[in-house]
Amino acid sequence: MKISARNQIGGTVSKITKGATTSHVSIDIGDGTIITASITNEAVADLQLRVGEPVKAIIKASDVMVAV
Amino acid sequence: MKISARNQIGGTVSKITKGATTSHVSIDIGDGTIITASITNEAVADLQLRVGEPVKAIIKASDVMVAV
Amino acid sequence: MKISARNQIGGTVSKITKGATTSHVSIDIGDGTIITASITNEAVADLQLRVGEPVKAIIKASDVMVAV
Amino acid sequence: MKISARNQIGGTVSKITKGATTSHVSIDIGDGTIITASITNEAVADLQLRVGEPVKAIIKASDVMVAV
Amino acid sequence: MKISARNQIGGTVSKITKGATTSHVSIDIGDGTIITASITNEAVADLQLRVGEPVKAIIKASDVMVAV
Amino acid sequence: MKISARNQIGGTVSKITKGATTSHVSIDIGDGTIITASITNEAVADLQLRVGEPVKAIIKASDVMVAV
Repeated sequence: MKISARNQIGGTVSKITKGATTSHVSIDIGDGTIITASITNEAVADLQLRVGEPVKAIIKASDVMVAV
Repeated sequence: MKISARNQIGGTVSKITKGATTSHVSIDIGDGTIITASITNEAVADLQLRVGEPVKAIIKASDVMVAV
Repeated sequence: MKISARNQIGGTVSKITKGATTSHVSIDIGDGTIITASITNEAVADLQLRVGEPVKAIIKASDVMVAV
Repeated sequence: MKISARNQIGGTVSKITKGATTSHVSIDIGDGTIITASITNEAVADLQLRVGEPVKAIIKASDVMVAV
Repeated sequence: MKISARNQIGGTVSKITKGATTSHVSIDIGDGTIITASITNEAVADLQLRVGEPVKAIIKASDVMVAV
Repeated sequence: MKISARNQIGGTVSKITKGATTSHVSIDIGDGTIITASITNEAVADLQLRVGEPVKAIIKASDVMVAV
């Protein structure tokens, strides 16, 4: 599957914190940079996410802000 | 200013493509990884963005998806 | 590729309206229901989108509101 | 009330899963297609959402991605 | 129509800037505070937005960040 | 830090409701107008948010809808 979201960054799951309906997934994309994703618990199970697994962080360009 | 968005990734502006109201800003975060931001032309001017300038890509955790 | 976004709705491209940096893509998901996506021109080219082609509309659960 | 969001899809509430602050609402839009919305518990109470009730799924065009 | 988005702020259209597919609408919510919305040109026409007209700015709680 | 998000509205924290992973923060921006933000519990701790503290609500223009 190819998707229109412009940002598709490879990394490895480093932590998963589960809430009642939402989980926070930490993705190590190298050089000590961690990207945090907030996704549904259902998605964590559906994608069988485990710490140490290779994944991609997918982000729409319109969801990225710039700061100086 | 400190902000609640969990993802704050340092990089350098590598390209700016201007449209009628919206610009696409490419941010090189190292290791060949480029993050694309879609922001208003007004923001590009307000932040005086230039190619080669150090910036941060700011992304809410709820705007990051995970793919396998 | 499997993605964490919970909404993945099949349909067919019925119209593409191009702007300076952003395009609006109309997706016919049947029963006369059209979903409109606003994506970058780069994504339209990258995915080689054409009217009549089968596609999926991908939407995060946190981006869906409910109205009564 | 008329709203600028381009996607306004009619359906029926088929399931509501409540978390600590956020609920997941499943909306059956016909032909077996379910749209999942993640909204605040406060919104579920405010809109008096019940399984079987007619609702609309409201989605901004800029929050819809396309996949092939 | 009642909607799940928690933020519904009354104001008056003070400016509309049109692009190729997207318009920026400035909403004066009083005390000199202006909220800027980026919506499709189609939505501007559909809602018959004019400078001086009363409108509401609608924002999901998950799209609001906090800064100190 | 300056950020590309066009909406930066000053106010005071009036309430914080904590969930398993996500908190809802109410921001009083004056004239009885409350803006609700849904942010991670980590962000609440990181920004040391307290009721009565001055903060800013930060919102991208593309996340604001208009209703009439």
